[in-house]
Amino acid sequence: MEISTLAKAVLRGERRALARAITLAESGRADHRAQATELLEALGQSGRQAIRIGLSGTPGVGKSTFIESFGLMLIDQGLRVAVLAVDPSSKRTGGSILGDKTRMDHLSRAPEAFIRPSPSQSHLGGVARRTRDAVALCEAAGFDVVLVETVGVGQSETVVADLSDVFLLLLAPAGGDELQGVKRGIMEAADMIVVNKADGDLKATATRTCADYSGALRLLRKRPEDPEGFPKAMTVSALENNGLPGVWDEIMALVDWRRAHGHWDRRRAEQARRWFEEELRETVLARLQTPEARQMGANLGAQVEAGQIAPARAAQTMLAAIWPEIADTPESLDAPQDSA
Amino acid sequence: MEISTLAKAVLRGERRALARAITLAESGRADHRAQATELLEALGQSGRQAIRIGLSGTPGVGKSTFIESFGLMLIDQGLRVAVLAVDPSSKRTGGSILGDKTRMDHLSRAPEAFIRPSPSQSHLGGVARRTRDAVALCEAAGFDVVLVETVGVGQSETVVADLSDVFLLLLAPAGGDELQGVKRGIMEAADMIVVNKADGDLKATATRTCADYSGALRLLRKRPEDPEGFPKAMTVSALENNGLPGVWDEIMALVDWRRAHGHWDRRRAEQARRWFEEELRETVLARLQTPEARQMGANLGAQVEAGQIAPARAAQTMLAAIWPEIADTPESLDAPQDSA
Repeated sequence: MEISTLAKAVLRGERRALARAITLAESGRADHRAQATELLEALGQSGRQAIRIGLSGTPGVGKSTFIESFGLMLIDQGLRVAVLAVDPSSKRTGGSILGDKTRMDHLSRAPEAFIRPSPSQSHLGGVARRTRDAVALCEAAGFDVVLVETVGVGQSETVVADLSDVFLLLLAPAGGDELQGVKRGIMEAADMIVVNKADGDLKATATRTCADYSGALRLLRKRPEDPEGFPKAMTVSALENNGLPGVWDEIMALVDWRRAHGHWDRRRAEQARRWFEEELRETVLARLQTPEARQMGANLGAQVEAGQIAPARAAQTMLAAIWPEIADTPESLDAPQDSA
Repeated sequence: MEISTLAKAVLRGERRALARAITLAESGRADHRAQATELLEALGQSGRQAIRIGLSGTPGVGKSTFIESFGLMLIDQGLRVAVLAVDPSSKRTGGSILGDKTRMDHLSRAPEAFIRPSPSQSHLGGVARRTRDAVALCEAAGFDVVLVETVGVGQSETVVADLSDVFLLLLAPAGGDELQGVKRGIMEAADMIVVNKADGDLKATATRTCADYSGALRLLRKRPEDPEGFPKAMTVSALENNGLPGVWDEIMALVDWRRAHGHWDRRRAEQARRWFEEELRETVLARLQTPEARQMGANLGAQVEAGQIAPARAAQTMLAAIWPEIADTPESLDAPQDSA
C-alpha cells in the first residue's frame, strides 16, 4: 500500500490501517522505519490531540480490570479509547494483561476501542521510540484518549511518564508487613496515585493506604505544572465500578488547568525536544551495541568489577578498539566543559 | 614532578600532593587527564578504602554547620576526614559552603581534615568523572571518611549518590505551608534522612518532620542492600552538637551490615562498572557537544518544540550533517533490538 493511502485510512480512523501503521513503526527493518517516519510526517498535520494517560502498576493491582472498567466508562461518554502496552520484558508474564485481550473482554470487543499488545523482543530504547510512534498514530486516527500501560519493568515507567500528559500509578491496598512499597523513582512521576480494590474486606485498608500515600506526596516538592492539590491519591474499586468517574473528573481538572496555564503545550513541546535529543543519543550509542562492542564491553566490565582495570582506562581501551576516530581525539572529552 | 613521585607523596598522605593530584584530575587539558589516569593507576594498588558518605541538602538546612560538627567529631575519634563538593552550577551561590572555607572554620584548620571546594566551570558529566577521581585520590591518601557534599543542582545528587557508600539527605524542620518538600528522585536515593536544627523553637517541628519522612520512607520498596530499619530518618542539632554520634553509629551499623552481607563489595563493583559504561557513553556523546553540533541542535530543537519537524527526522537531519558515518547506517538504529 502507498504511504499516502495508508495515511488517509489512518486519518479516517480505520482500525486495520492503524494496526498496520503501528506494525510498520514497530518493525526492526530500516525500510519499514523509513516508511513509518514518512507516514508520521504525512499525519503530523492532522493537529489531532488525544489525552495521553500513562498507567503503571505491578501485577496484581487489578490493572486489567481498571482499564476495562475505565475504558468502557469513557466509551459510554462518547469517547474513543486506544490502549497500548509497554512491556520491555517481552516475555509474557502474569503482569502483561495486554498479551491476553480476553482479560479485557468487553473493551476489546467495543468498536470505539483499539487495544494493542506490547511488541515483543524489544530493547528499551526501541520501546520508547516505537511507543511514541504508536501513540502519535492513535492520535492521528482520532482517538480521544490513549492509555499507555506498563508493568514497570526496568525504566519502562520513565518511558511511559515521558510520553504521557497525565501519569497514573495504580496500587493495591496494603499495610504493615504486606506493604511492598512503590518502586523507587515512580511515586515522583505520578500525577495521581489510584488505590484500587477499595471494596469488601479491603476497603478500610485501601483508605489507609491512600492516606499514607497522600501524606508521602505532600512531602515532594511542588512542580510548576501541578495545580493545588496535585499530585493526589484516590481510592477506587474497578471491580464494583466505584470511583472511576471521580478519577476521570480529576484527570480532566488537571488537564483543563494545565491547558489554561500553558503547561499542556509546554509539556508537549518539552517532550518533543527530549525525544529529539534521545533519538540523537540512542542513534549514536547504538554504536556501542554491536555484537563486537557488547562482547568487549562484557569482558572489560567484568575486569572493572574485579578491580583489575580502572573504569576510565577500560573505556579508553574499548573505544580505541571499536571506534578509533573517537578514542583518538581526547579533546572531545572536554568539549562540554569548555563551553559550559 | 614525576607521576611516580607524586603518587608516593599522595600515599604518604601529604595534603599538598593530594591537592595537586586533584587539580590534575580536574583539568580540562588532555595531557593532564592522561597524567591523572596514570596516577590513579599507580595508586590503585593501595587497597585503601574510605567510607564515602554522600551528603545532599539545599541551602539553609545547615549543611556547613553539620559538616563542621560531624567532621570534628570524627577527628576526635582519631579519624581523618576529607570533604569534597559537587556544585555543577559553578557560580558560587549561597548554597555552596565549600567555596567559603571560613564557614567551616575549625574543620578547615584541623590537620586531620582536607577540604576541597567544587571545581568551577564544569559540565555535569565532567563533574561526575572528576569527583570520582578526587574521591579515589582521597582514599589513596589514607583518609578514613570522604564526605561528598552537593547542593543538589540538576542531577548532581544522582552523581553523588552513585559514588557514595552511604547517602544522607539533610533537611530542615518544616511543616504545613513552609514544607517545600524534597526534590523528586532524591528521597529514594537516601540511606538516611537527617532532620537538622532539632533545637530551640524548632525541636517539635523537627520531630514531626522526621516522623513524616519516616512514614514516607516506609512506603518505598525495600532494596536488598538495606538492613531492617533502613532507610531511616533521624533528628539532630548540628548547632548544639546533639545526635551526631547517633548518625555516625547508624552509618557504621549500615556499613557493617553491608560488609557482612556482601553488599559493600557488590555496590562498589557495580559502581565501578557503571562508571566504565558512563565513561564510554560520555566519550561518545561528547561528539554531540561540539560547538557546531550544539548550534545545530539548538536550531533543530526549537523547530521540534514548535512542531515544525518531527523529532526523529530532526535527529536524522542533524546526524547526517555532523556525523554522516553514523547517519548512513540506519541498521545501527536497530542493533539493540536485534540482539535483545
